[in-house]
Amino acid sequence: MNATPPTDQDFLADFATMGTFGATGNGGVDRQAGTAADGEQRRWLEGLLTDRGFTVRYDRIGNQWGLLELVPGAPYVVVGSHMDSQPTAGKYDGAYGVLAAAHAAFRVAARHRSGSHGAAVGREPVANVAVVNWFNEEGSRFKPSMMGSSVYTGKLAPGDALAVRDAAGVSVGEALDALGFRGDWDGPEAAACAEIHIEQGRSMERDGVTIGLVHSNWAANKYEFVVHGEQAHTGSTVIADRHDALLGASMLVVAAREIADAFPGVVHTSVGQLDVYPNSPVVVPSRVSLLLDLRSADEPVLAEADAMLHERVGRIEAAASVTIERRTSHSWPVTPYQPEGVELAAKAAADLGLVHRPVMTLAGHDSTNMKDIVPTVMLFVPSVDGISHNEHEYTHDGDLVAGLAVLTDVMERLLAGELTER
Amino acid sequence: MNATPPTDQDFLADFATMGTFGATGNGGVDRQAGTAADGEQRRWLEGLLTDRGFTVRYDRIGNQWGLLELVPGAPYVVVGSHMDSQPTAGKYDGAYGVLAAAHAAFRVAARHRSGSHGAAVGREPVANVAVVNWFNEEGSRFKPSMMGSSVYTGKLAPGDALAVRDAAGVSVGEALDALGFRGDWDGPEAAACAEIHIEQGRSMERDGVTIGLVHSNWAANKYEFVVHGEQAHTGSTVIADRHDALLGASMLVVAAREIADAFPGVVHTSVGQLDVYPNSPVVVPSRVSLLLDLRSADEPVLAEADAMLHERVGRIEAAASVTIERRTSHSWPVTPYQPEGVELAAKAAADLGLVHRPVMTLAGHDSTNMKDIVPTVMLFVPSVDGISHNEHEYTHDGDLVAGLAVLTDVMERLLAGELTER
Repeated sequence: MNATPPTDQDFLADFATMGTFGATGNGGVDRQAGTAADGEQRRWLEGLLTDRGFTVRYDRIGNQWGLLELVPGAPYVVVGSHMDSQPTAGKYDGAYGVLAAAHAAFRVAARHRSGSHGAAVGREPVANVAVVNWFNEEGSRFKPSMMGSSVYTGKLAPGDALAVRDAAGVSVGEALDALGFRGDWDGPEAAACAEIHIEQGRSMERDGVTIGLVHSNWAANKYEFVVHGEQAHTGSTVIADRHDALLGASMLVVAAREIADAFPGVVHTSVGQLDVYPNSPVVVPSRVSLLLDLRSADEPVLAEADAMLHERVGRIEAAASVTIERRTSHSWPVTPYQPEGVELAAKAAADLGLVHRPVMTLAGHDSTNMKDIVPTVMLFVPSVDGISHNEHEYTHDGDLVAGLAVLTDVMERLLAGELTER
Repeated sequence: MNATPPTDQDFLADFATMGTFGATGNGGVDRQAGTAADGEQRRWLEGLLTDRGFTVRYDRIGNQWGLLELVPGAPYVVVGSHMDSQPTAGKYDGAYGVLAAAHAAFRVAARHRSGSHGAAVGREPVANVAVVNWFNEEGSRFKPSMMGSSVYTGKLAPGDALAVRDAAGVSVGEALDALGFRGDWDGPEAAACAEIHIEQGRSMERDGVTIGLVHSNWAANKYEFVVHGEQAHTGSTVIADRHDALLGASMLVVAAREIADAFPGVVHTSVGQLDVYPNSPVVVPSRVSLLLDLRSADEPVLAEADAMLHERVGRIEAAASVTIERRTSHSWPVTPYQPEGVELAAKAAADLGLVHRPVMTLAGHDSTNMKDIVPTVMLFVPSVDGISHNEHEYTHDGDLVAGLAVLTDVMERLLAGELTER
């Protein structure tokens, strides 16, 4: 067993190794959930964890856990993120948070073994350490996103999640079994949680902030719309006779942007996925399904934007001679992270002399699920130019190791019961 | 060998059998080029042809030929259409024309054997009979459309066509080899050509016309546009930083319809195929490719519509912060069928007492290729409600057999050299 505390250089070396799993030609990664590349990276992390004396286990939805028992029988401080990626994604999203959690845990474990644990916070641990690599946070291959943490927190039934199929018809259960990552266990009992992630926006970089203290998330309404038209010949069918599902869908995509433009900086909208049937050059499409999101930090504004969208849907049905079905709807309000957690993180960043500031998260994270069951701390480090879900995603090494230092301190405070035992 | 002339009832019975190959639940068919269903139907046609004494051969691009030699060494009157279909298509498109060609040829062959051939036109044949089932007219699985007739007429190199791959990576050559339909022969020498097809529009039904005499085709400009943006997170990326390829593509789809609306009834536009990358719910798309057509019977109007489109492309690039690449372009002018062929078909229809009228074709057909190398007659029968490329495509039995009668007469006149020997 390796008992020496790893250095910042060790962390950066491990991070460089991490980026080789599923590496793409342009400096990014393609490591969708349950693929061979995801599996190889998980085996590598397993080796890293067991080498440091952690026990590695998989729960029923394939979340990967690295466990270290400091206080026999006590619950766990869960720290981690996800290692799966979007197709042609960056190296930082999720992966940084898992490796930072592992290295923070290695530092804590080394101090514990040397008897200096608790020196920083003046108290011995009252909980155990769990490093977690959540399964399928991205949701690109299997929907919904944040699948592993949703099952762990009881928001999604394991059977439903395991039955989800990808575009090729492979189920989550089959993908996990093929790689040997499906366990028969619910995961450890959590006492508290922490996650560190890149910002994926440009506000921190712009304002010279090194550590973002996430105090709440933007509200979001997510819809699947299915536009129904009728197949026809693209050449011979007169325009008046057409019921063009792709025209209706395109009008919806344009409307979504116009709604964002009506609330500049306050509402974000997007359509990331759109599928056309039968998708043949000479056939007017009869069916288009698309996923449309509306997000805002301001709930009344979001409600107003949502009303605009639904009014536009009716107008588009008339203009394109189509019907538009709203098939699924998934929404969440602005929800706060525990303010005590934000304070604790602020203290940790201040002790390390790092510029910090409360921020909101626009993206969803596994910690968004975890904060609903245990006190949870969410930290950000800056993203250069705000680029994310892109092979050119980048965060400076200095920010990566600053984030690791804060996360280590936060972990030690959570282990000492600062959020749970006052 | 079956030497009795088949009746209209025999034709309708064979047509009903034809619709069972690749039948869908809603009365349509799915019989894309080179699929198992296409192969089964070809084997069935092969049996029908050989049973009537025709020799069946396949050329290098998999066109299926049923040959009957009446005048040793003479060239062939080529009559046929295509049996492949769009996904979830109707039973009539193409298939009717191949079966009508086969039954017309069976009638001609029976008369020839009974010594009564030429009675209708007062002359003995100077050419031989070739029933053809062109490979891949639809172009849904393998692009471009009209592949078989394009290779036969020398417009497309056989090697290029055989190398085309479908979405699953299977090449045309592999698909043909798997079914045993790739020959090492260029096909018979053609003297003249005829094709019958459903109108796929509603003008003939509206005006009570049974036989359409196609005198020319609409002009068309077909483009592949690739919209280039940049991957970003759909939630956290501020709107001003986005380069959303799907927004740009959607604006192009809407612009195409607006251009058609600017020339009501005179310009047809459409986008039938659109593919999004990476097509993930939370990633701003970085690349969307789409196929856009502009068609008109009026060439100056088409040029005006095309100029409008290109002006809109520039505006969309600015509005959506994307770049739009025009990757391929394929266009054809208004081209006439030989006027003598239209006259010949008018005579045949008049002799049979059928209401007929010159019409234009808005869709492309294999005869559009053939008319560029030999005198070619193109006939239409009406489509109920103009519905096509749709499982509900329909033509009345009475119109099917009326078309068969005219095609038989046209075949006999072409065999007698009416277009080639005056």
